[in-house]
Amino acid sequence: MIDLNADLGEGFGRWQLTDDERLLSVVTSANVACGFHAGDAATMRRVCALAAERGVQIGAQVSYRDLAGFGRRSMDVPSAELAAEVAYQIGALEVFARAAGSRVSYVKPHGALYNRVVHDERQAEAVVEGVLLADAALPVLGLPGSRLLEVAEKAGLPAVTEAFADRAYTEEGTLVPRGENGAVVTDPDVVVERSVGLARSGVVNAHSGREIPVRARSLCLHGDTPGAVDLARRVRAALQAAGVRVEAFA
Amino acid sequence: MIDLNADLGEGFGRWQLTDDERLLSVVTSANVACGFHAGDAATMRRVCALAAERGVQIGAQVSYRDLAGFGRRSMDVPSAELAAEVAYQIGALEVFARAAGSRVSYVKPHGALYNRVVHDERQAEAVVEGVLLADAALPVLGLPGSRLLEVAEKAGLPAVTEAFADRAYTEEGTLVPRGENGAVVTDPDVVVERSVGLARSGVVNAHSGREIPVRARSLCLHGDTPGAVDLARRVRAALQAAGVRVEAFA
Amino acid sequence: MIDLNADLGEGFGRWQLTDDERLLSVVTSANVACGFHAGDAATMRRVCALAAERGVQIGAQVSYRDLAGFGRRSMDVPSAELAAEVAYQIGALEVFARAAGSRVSYVKPHGALYNRVVHDERQAEAVVEGVLLADAALPVLGLPGSRLLEVAEKAGLPAVTEAFADRAYTEEGTLVPRGENGAVVTDPDVVVERSVGLARSGVVNAHSGREIPVRARSLCLHGDTPGAVDLARRVRAALQAAGVRVEAFA
Amino acid sequence: MIDLNADLGEGFGRWQLTDDERLLSVVTSANVACGFHAGDAATMRRVCALAAERGVQIGAQVSYRDLAGFGRRSMDVPSAELAAEVAYQIGALEVFARAAGSRVSYVKPHGALYNRVVHDERQAEAVVEGVLLADAALPVLGLPGSRLLEVAEKAGLPAVTEAFADRAYTEEGTLVPRGENGAVVTDPDVVVERSVGLARSGVVNAHSGREIPVRARSLCLHGDTPGAVDLARRVRAALQAAGVRVEAFA
Repeated sequence: MIDLNADLGEGFGRWQLTDDERLLSVVTSANVACGFHAGDAATMRRVCALAAERGVQIGAQVSYRDLAGFGRRSMDVPSAELAAEVAYQIGALEVFARAAGSRVSYVKPHGALYNRVVHDERQAEAVVEGVLLADAALPVLGLPGSRLLEVAEKAGLPAVTEAFADRAYTEEGTLVPRGENGAVVTDPDVVVERSVGLARSGVVNAHSGREIPVRARSLCLHGDTPGAVDLARRVRAALQAAGVRVEAFA
Repeated sequence: MIDLNADLGEGFGRWQLTDDERLLSVVTSANVACGFHAGDAATMRRVCALAAERGVQIGAQVSYRDLAGFGRRSMDVPSAELAAEVAYQIGALEVFARAAGSRVSYVKPHGALYNRVVHDERQAEAVVEGVLLADAALPVLGLPGSRLLEVAEKAGLPAVTEAFADRAYTEEGTLVPRGENGAVVTDPDVVVERSVGLARSGVVNAHSGREIPVRARSLCLHGDTPGAVDLARRVRAALQAAGVRVEAFA
Repeated sequence: MIDLNADLGEGFGRWQLTDDERLLSVVTSANVACGFHAGDAATMRRVCALAAERGVQIGAQVSYRDLAGFGRRSMDVPSAELAAEVAYQIGALEVFARAAGSRVSYVKPHGALYNRVVHDERQAEAVVEGVLLADAALPVLGLPGSRLLEVAEKAGLPAVTEAFADRAYTEEGTLVPRGENGAVVTDPDVVVERSVGLARSGVVNAHSGREIPVRARSLCLHGDTPGAVDLARRVRAALQAAGVRVEAFA
Repeated sequence: MIDLNADLGEGFGRWQLTDDERLLSVVTSANVACGFHAGDAATMRRVCALAAERGVQIGAQVSYRDLAGFGRRSMDVPSAELAAEVAYQIGALEVFARAAGSRVSYVKPHGALYNRVVHDERQAEAVVEGVLLADAALPVLGLPGSRLLEVAEKAGLPAVTEAFADRAYTEEGTLVPRGENGAVVTDPDVVVERSVGLARSGVVNAHSGREIPVRARSLCLHGDTPGAVDLARRVRAALQAAGVRVEAFA
């Protein structure tokens, strides 16, 4: 059993980025941008309505307040500000999820915040505090072994692990940083094969070639590159052909 | 019986404006800024906690998206955008109200939006649509006779009227526009006397001197000028001395 | 002799919109977004460098401060604020134009501000005041007969007229509002033919079919739709084939 | 000979912070906020006009793009973005300085950016690149020994040192971080005495009590606390009484 998640609603006003409509026919979890790195209110409403219609669960993709940098610039935000900003974003999305007959079912940090809470305990605690402000039982989606998931579990929140079939892993099970050679797996056939391995056996070939275990209740698919939606479809089809049940986690 | 409302939490980041702490010991309803004209997430959280502690009901003070203009510049926002932005603001505030053990109990538009929905039916409908997205039973606070309250009532939302003891009225019961001579009543004694008249008898002396009826379930007090909090206290004391029960409407 | 202008640099951060590189090989004037409705600093720098390299003159495409609405929502901005905001945008762009060995050669309002200063004298005066703050000899590009061009001329600024080959005209020479039937001319052949007529004879067929005179020193081309760049190229080629010199106005 | 600088124009829209008018009668250099952490266009215009009128030189107080955090949150901004954003801010201010008959005479980073370029070579280089884009001869104001001043000097820009009479110093001549005990000197008499010592002899007592040398062509005064302007006046008077010429550096 595996969940498929993708970032959605990442336009802003006149600007579009993600192919929300087509992705929502593939994934089981929609990480909806909440207005801080992307995502205006009207887009949030539209994406929630589409997701609810298709039975896709809705997650709050929370971010630093940084439209100009698309949330990709790490920021030293004081804990009280960060916790409140996380709660603010979840609450704003909740309105549209409820209006569509659904609800916010999980929280996933975006971009630089996602990367930072892998190691930064203080910010991980602030994110979890923000989630708790909104809902004391909301699952948090992140990297296995991250500070975020540790802190979330200690606070009594369900911690949901995810993996990336299109990213290279070190032998220790961490992602090879973008920018390094071979950090991104570009061959669609390999991505499909890795997806099946991750979902069925919980293993993937590390950068070195050695097979390593990677815990993942969800696979993160990308939707912002040409061919991304087609690849996502192939991944889903291959998973189902391999007998894996594709199903949301919450 | 009368409610006293005031705008609160109208700082942003480093900037402060309203004396939230002291005003919350006077009013029965707090119009909390939701981030579009003022009000960052940490301030919203703090004001909601204080309000809940003191038994002051929390309202969403929704605005055009306009920090630079403090929401005082009328904007031609398309209906779908405006409705979604209103809902977004209510949802964001709801998180902090709930976390404080309270809830968002009403909605009041701010500044240019407040003035516009007195006459602009399309924007009034968009605001009401936004309120309905968030909660189909949320009271709307506004001017008696405004399009906003008419549209709200038609949609089944409780319409709550308010009056301004420190603003001059025409004989038709509308506010004399700011900028015109005598638009603002500055003598504290007169403001106190008008407050009692409005609350006890539902009347006020118009600009012309003639007494006119003004329906008001709430009086709006101002908190952003020197002496404002002291005046608010005097108004509250005078109302109670005159046998008026000061009580929230929701 | 005719100038060809187009809006450029209308992305923001992660979001792209205009095909800047290809458009800059067609137009003679680049209306560069200055950060208020679109256009981040790095994009402004890049577009100015490309424009200078290709001998395309640089204009400041000034707007209301409204990223979420892409500057398409009319706003009641007080004159002093609007004048200062116009000057701010021109100054910011001037740095990148100068760094590229060029300069800001004209100013053109964007979107809702463009439409508003056709009729709104107060805002037209504020825009002109902003231009004068920046440079007392900077040409202003706009609609013939607009308040903007009248006020600019009175203030001693060169007023440059433009026309739209892909928009329908009334018999009075004003644009048929978008949203009305037939407001936009979609047949590429007709757009090309109208361009030549406007440039060579200063005439165009009005909506009614009757030929009317339209003064235009520049034609505005659009670059944000599929096929737009190809159409722009065809227009330029047809103008040159018809013996019209395609040349910047400043 | 010493210069006195202070941060000015740090309001935004409806919000005020610095007492611009009174400070401008004390300082010789005005660090004017340029819109990224504070400072709207109308305020920039007004402060430049006042500064020019009083013969106070105008500097661009450049910042990360962070209104919500008042530029006090360190950000990992890519070099190309940071350089362009610095240039953008300088250009915007230049318009108002020129319109007032003056010019931008120096650049000083604000808040988290100021602290970061003490040590972060990459960001220091980006700031200097931004300054060079605007003007290849513009002085940069900062801490003696900072990466910023080193990089500026290498690039041929005048590097101007400043000191803080109200901040504690380590024996190595660096500032004791805010938050640590005794980081801020609060006794006005001591601040005045230290100002004279710094300006006349280039020495100050370190935290430990030992006298250390501190190079400073300018003293930074603060204007955002009660009593700040009065203290600034006392410092200026004491300097003049001690025979120090108070004069801008550029």
